[in-house]
Amino acid sequence: MFVAIMGYGVIGSGVAAVLKQNQEKICKRTGLDSIEVKYILDLRTFPGDPNEHLVTSDFNKIVNDPEVKIVVETMGGTKPAFDFVLACLKAGKSVVTSNKELVAAKGYELLKAAKENNVNFMFEASVGGGIPIIRPLTRCLAANEIVEIAGILNGTTNFILTKMITEGMSFEDALAVAQKLGYAERDPSADVDGYDALRKICILASLCYGKHVYPEGIHVEGIRGITAQDVAYAKSIDSVIKLIGSASAIEGSDKINIMVSPAIIRNGSQLASTNDVFNAVLVRGNMVDDVVFYGRGAGSLPTASAVVADVMDCAINSDKTKPFGWEDSTESNAAPYSDFVAPFYVRMAGDKAKVDAAFGASIKYITCENAPCDEIAFTAEPMAVKDLEAKLRATGADVKSVIRITDY
Amino acid sequence: MFVAIMGYGVIGSGVAAVLKQNQEKICKRTGLDSIEVKYILDLRTFPGDPNEHLVTSDFNKIVNDPEVKIVVETMGGTKPAFDFVLACLKAGKSVVTSNKELVAAKGYELLKAAKENNVNFMFEASVGGGIPIIRPLTRCLAANEIVEIAGILNGTTNFILTKMITEGMSFEDALAVAQKLGYAERDPSADVDGYDALRKICILASLCYGKHVYPEGIHVEGIRGITAQDVAYAKSIDSVIKLIGSASAIEGSDKINIMVSPAIIRNGSQLASTNDVFNAVLVRGNMVDDVVFYGRGAGSLPTASAVVADVMDCAINSDKTKPFGWEDSTESNAAPYSDFVAPFYVRMAGDKAKVDAAFGASIKYITCENAPCDEIAFTAEPMAVKDLEAKLRATGADVKSVIRITDY
Repeated sequence: MFVAIMGYGVIGSGVAAVLKQNQEKICKRTGLDSIEVKYILDLRTFPGDPNEHLVTSDFNKIVNDPEVKIVVETMGGTKPAFDFVLACLKAGKSVVTSNKELVAAKGYELLKAAKENNVNFMFEASVGGGIPIIRPLTRCLAANEIVEIAGILNGTTNFILTKMITEGMSFEDALAVAQKLGYAERDPSADVDGYDALRKICILASLCYGKHVYPEGIHVEGIRGITAQDVAYAKSIDSVIKLIGSASAIEGSDKINIMVSPAIIRNGSQLASTNDVFNAVLVRGNMVDDVVFYGRGAGSLPTASAVVADVMDCAINSDKTKPFGWEDSTESNAAPYSDFVAPFYVRMAGDKAKVDAAFGASIKYITCENAPCDEIAFTAEPMAVKDLEAKLRATGADVKSVIRITDY
Repeated sequence: MFVAIMGYGVIGSGVAAVLKQNQEKICKRTGLDSIEVKYILDLRTFPGDPNEHLVTSDFNKIVNDPEVKIVVETMGGTKPAFDFVLACLKAGKSVVTSNKELVAAKGYELLKAAKENNVNFMFEASVGGGIPIIRPLTRCLAANEIVEIAGILNGTTNFILTKMITEGMSFEDALAVAQKLGYAERDPSADVDGYDALRKICILASLCYGKHVYPEGIHVEGIRGITAQDVAYAKSIDSVIKLIGSASAIEGSDKINIMVSPAIIRNGSQLASTNDVFNAVLVRGNMVDDVVFYGRGAGSLPTASAVVADVMDCAINSDKTKPFGWEDSTESNAAPYSDFVAPFYVRMAGDKAKVDAAFGASIKYITCENAPCDEIAFTAEPMAVKDLEAKLRATGADVKSVIRITDY
């Protein structure tokens, strides 16, 4: 069987490598005689690369070749990826992608096109890199109502936070280390401001709650505002700070809470012990309780291994479109962030008398080593964001950090 | 669609409950109009149970009813489960089981029968309860050669070890607590001697390495011999002791190392932070590196949720047998345990001069709080079990504990 790869970057070249190195096993498991890359679409040339002769800049070669049954899209972005993917699906080819931006923006539309053309559109690698999460969520946990899904979905920010937690670094210093090691881009905004994680939680929420959740308008906070002081206060309550994308059902409503923000997580839990560039996704089902999936959320070969697993699934199920139960949504099912209820940690300059006046007995002051004497910090009992904000305004204090506290 | 459940115990009744409680979602996800339990096979009666009217003691009613397309086997044991399951497959019904004993003993034979009759035999719930592991292993990680698979596969022993680690309890006291809480049977042998974990690692190894690995003859050690002293020594090297079932490829050989035994695991890793009755399975692929699956390894609803996911998969794939790549093995592919190479921890009564004479520079002495003065403990560099044993014999010492040290 012949495959085409569109985009010969980090992941695309990994896909070619995995297909070659594990070819024997892949054929045995799929029952195929052979699986071979016929074209690699890229505008660049790759002199000396073992696959140099496969590279073409002409998309039409791929879409018009009836021998190509499966197309791998690892170009990134939505233009021209969306047009190319749609054309391939319409030409009767299954498509596998690692492109979270494409799936978050156009997942419903592409799944619909796949169904109409009796082919498959698969995207295991778009969330969590090599970690199996899409398939376990849609198949293995299919008998559950998903109460909540929450994950450490971005390796760069998790690396930075790990440095801050284990070595007491500032955000700026930890970011510089991440950039030096190649974990963070020179413009780190997509990672540190939470937009990468946002796309991934939108994909997961679409799968869990059956309606396309578009990233626009969802509450997203990154980690630029987290200080070494916040990390120290979290430690004093035996916890760590992680950047969490989460989506949860609201009882008695068809809306969901969905957000990306820093969160305080108790030590000893699986998410708290997910360090460095590793990712982890927690799924809380109404029957199975908590299940956690952990592994490398990025990287050439781990991500490629997830892409190739999808390719194999497309090969085995070439005659049948697998259902994902992901419908379109004209109206957003995301509840306003201001209504989100949780316990919170607060750090502020200010005096306790005013805090006590505003909050009464619903808070607990916390301290930590080397706490500045002009600062106070406390944890507040569960309340809606808007209520918390109103009370904080009533204190008249200079609020420095507000971080939600999770129960996982 | 109609389903039958054979065995109305903890898991069988959970299956009925999940099918009822999440019916709407299950139908939506599978595209079925309805999914209903038509028979429950059990020799007991259940007066007052909402499903009382479905209970029958006559297997023939099930096997001869063409309306029943999927049969759930939650009886346990191999007799009469094997005969019943085989008869159902031959009658053209897909079968889903949670019965690890059945799968470990007869997996190949039943998969073969399923294939011959164009139906499915699925067993996600047989390992790791509600944790998705079988399907991720055979589908999502299918593009990998599996370097090693290792897991905390038994909740009872993990609960006992957690009590020993966190509260310094003796094995006997921790077992008594587990029995009091209903986590351990009055005769706890199947759990504490490692036989339950053995069946599960045999199933996982059969899937990872493509040949049926039968439990007979595999090295199995339980946790009866672990003392509070061993736990303290492990702590002194920032580690914990867990009961691990593992299987790993041997480079340049088609044999595998497979065993169940206590193992020393460094703190901070996902397996080390898997506590109480929770299970976790680590899969090390040649492309994806380490992936870990964590969750409840037992319990009525978690396990039932895995069974029902298989039922849904059977419903969706009613026209097609899913391949598992699990072949028969006339000759065992398990390498002898005496050839297994690893670093080890040793605790003994004896004197250092004789230990130094036998081991030279390949060991490192360790100490811990309250260590008895007539005991010594050390960690030894990687060596084969038979070499370690020969050296230990040469010391002439009374060896109290030998525990392998893992790198995960």
